[in-house]
Amino acid sequence: MLLSRRRLLASAGLGAAGVGLGASGYLIGHEAATAEAAEAAGTVPFHGEHQAGIATPAQDRLHFAAFDLETESRAELRELLEEWSQAAREMTEGRMIGAENDNLLAPPDDTGEAKGLPASNLTVTFGLGPGVFDRPGLGLAGRRPPELKPLPPLPGDELNELESGGDICVQACADDPQVVFHAVRNLARIGRGTVTMRWSQLGFGRTSTTSRGQETPRNLFGMKDGTANIKSEDTEAMNEFVWVDDGPAWMRGGSYLVSRRIRMNLEVWDRSSLADQEETIGRRKYDGAPLGGQEEFEPLPLDKTGPDGEPVIPTNCHVRLASARENGGVQILRRGYSFTDGVDQSLGELEAGLFFIAFQRDPEKQFVVLQRKLGVHDLLDEYIKHVGSAVFAVPRGAEEGGFVGEALFA
Amino acid sequence: MLLSRRRLLASAGLGAAGVGLGASGYLIGHEAATAEAAEAAGTVPFHGEHQAGIATPAQDRLHFAAFDLETESRAELRELLEEWSQAAREMTEGRMIGAENDNLLAPPDDTGEAKGLPASNLTVTFGLGPGVFDRPGLGLAGRRPPELKPLPPLPGDELNELESGGDICVQACADDPQVVFHAVRNLARIGRGTVTMRWSQLGFGRTSTTSRGQETPRNLFGMKDGTANIKSEDTEAMNEFVWVDDGPAWMRGGSYLVSRRIRMNLEVWDRSSLADQEETIGRRKYDGAPLGGQEEFEPLPLDKTGPDGEPVIPTNCHVRLASARENGGVQILRRGYSFTDGVDQSLGELEAGLFFIAFQRDPEKQFVVLQRKLGVHDLLDEYIKHVGSAVFAVPRGAEEGGFVGEALFA
Repeated sequence: MLLSRRRLLASAGLGAAGVGLGASGYLIGHEAATAEAAEAAGTVPFHGEHQAGIATPAQDRLHFAAFDLETESRAELRELLEEWSQAAREMTEGRMIGAENDNLLAPPDDTGEAKGLPASNLTVTFGLGPGVFDRPGLGLAGRRPPELKPLPPLPGDELNELESGGDICVQACADDPQVVFHAVRNLARIGRGTVTMRWSQLGFGRTSTTSRGQETPRNLFGMKDGTANIKSEDTEAMNEFVWVDDGPAWMRGGSYLVSRRIRMNLEVWDRSSLADQEETIGRRKYDGAPLGGQEEFEPLPLDKTGPDGEPVIPTNCHVRLASARENGGVQILRRGYSFTDGVDQSLGELEAGLFFIAFQRDPEKQFVVLQRKLGVHDLLDEYIKHVGSAVFAVPRGAEEGGFVGEALFA
Repeated sequence: MLLSRRRLLASAGLGAAGVGLGASGYLIGHEAATAEAAEAAGTVPFHGEHQAGIATPAQDRLHFAAFDLETESRAELRELLEEWSQAAREMTEGRMIGAENDNLLAPPDDTGEAKGLPASNLTVTFGLGPGVFDRPGLGLAGRRPPELKPLPPLPGDELNELESGGDICVQACADDPQVVFHAVRNLARIGRGTVTMRWSQLGFGRTSTTSRGQETPRNLFGMKDGTANIKSEDTEAMNEFVWVDDGPAWMRGGSYLVSRRIRMNLEVWDRSSLADQEETIGRRKYDGAPLGGQEEFEPLPLDKTGPDGEPVIPTNCHVRLASARENGGVQILRRGYSFTDGVDQSLGELEAGLFFIAFQRDPEKQFVVLQRKLGVHDLLDEYIKHVGSAVFAVPRGAEEGGFVGEALFA
């Protein structure tokens, strides 16, 4: 799949402003030319004001991994981020990692399984968990932004410690699953001795749209998902809800990532009537139009009532409770993926669900606000449970020649 | 991805003989016209002498599931296979399952997550495990082919009972992971009460080539895999090694499927030198040419020695030990996929490997012969272990209007 010009500009953090200007003035001169070249090759630039993989139109496949830091050395953490950025740049350009790939006497720098595959719009996005700023040896407590802290206990939590938390995250997205696997596997390899993989998640299909040009995908309940998501072309919304523009310099242009591993009880859902399914979500199953409406992308008719005097969008349905209007205008950028990891032996059914990812300026004021409401009232709660949870600060993008997180060490 | 004419003919069980003749005379008259229509739509015909998904050029993604039978009723087993065949036919044609999808008061017949997606060359292949023929209530002992029995203990086995065995298998392959997930999930739903899912495996990337038109993929060791595999265009080899042509009528035109979940120790592999890796396999890493050779598809130079007088293809390397020449001419049709299912918590590394699938006329004379040699001598054994294992009889294909396994009940 080639990156359309529109998608590319979106992924470079540009909205309607166009090439040469942009919100940040980042994409100018030769960078614009490079972007055009990249478009033809299905590559997403690694460098920029923002890390790629946030505003980038959601690719089809995901491999996400969380690592625990095994060092108290600030120099080692810095070196890790520098090496990871270098490798990520090479992989996102569709190249093999490193120079030592032909030396028969040494292990190759690159494990090789993506050789011959196109970059497939690979993006690699790095984040730092709260624990990094708690370690005395690293001496980073003074650089901790107040927004970065563990999520509070939330309604609907049935969290498994082994699928939650982590000091550093890697979100690899691309249109080829072998390319994302290759990225995570090689970064884990580079990090050996400095980090240990804590948990990892393969996502086989995107459940969110993050660009106006994309078709809305279906989640494992068979429903269109992400219709009302923020679109990256909406610069105003991206600036208001996603990009950080204050606090420590290393976070300006960054964002906060919340991940939730959400198990979906497919058996119970599948036994529900079509009406129940649609009223739980608040949209029609097949065309995605809001109940009481005509087509997918129209605004939710939240105030409309039916012949029975009841709201056509039920009071406790998902789209109403998650809507900006019912949450003081709050929005998040969702970028989730469907998963399955075999059979839940206790139930004899597929262990499957949604690996939810959201980006925002402040988790406490955004995701937490939404989940406090959804976790209590949402009709959907009957069919889901949150089994994994994590939060990461996603630093601003790396400048040309620099690395992600560099400003943290300045 | 559209199905090329060549691939389509191959998947319909035709070799060089061409349309209108074929080994079986199956694809004639209107069926040939249907095949051309199917080609344009990216669909693989469900009906035919052979089940699809064996000779079909290996699609990119897999969802495989093994089920335990919960009934002793022959009528219920028959009904299950009939309903499954009907659903498989609808899905492989890119349609939703069933008629009751718009009734608001009932659960939809189809769960919906593949709605809007093309058929993506979906194939659904059914198999019956040895246990089916052991159940007195089913009364099928007299129809059991002698080739169908549990695999003997094999060198290299470190089998986990919960990832092994099963009474019925479903192999769903397509070029879209959401399409294969949808197939397995809906078949599990249809089978509720009659079968329980025992284990399931998502494969994210094919590791085998089964058609001359396909590029050889790389496995997770970064090596090209499947170069010397049987190609479905090779009618002679397919007839000699894959298709059953004797024994009970329900198996004539069928085959035997052996699955092995093979964990790959990526960390140890990645620490090996390029020379070690290449000598373990017997091929060069990047171009896949045999050691001592020039290009990927040339015959293995098994008798060639180097300046040191040693064979250029090492004595205990994988390609030599697995070669037909070293095994009395024995071959199998491989159709495996790479997988990862998160982190092996005991090691802090990716739980990943190869989900090996092979088709053959007689497991004892083919897979077992090969594995008895490979499991003892193969240099590759240092890097892999077999953790799951199963064997299934794959009945002949369903005739137009019939279902898979029908002849078993005649």
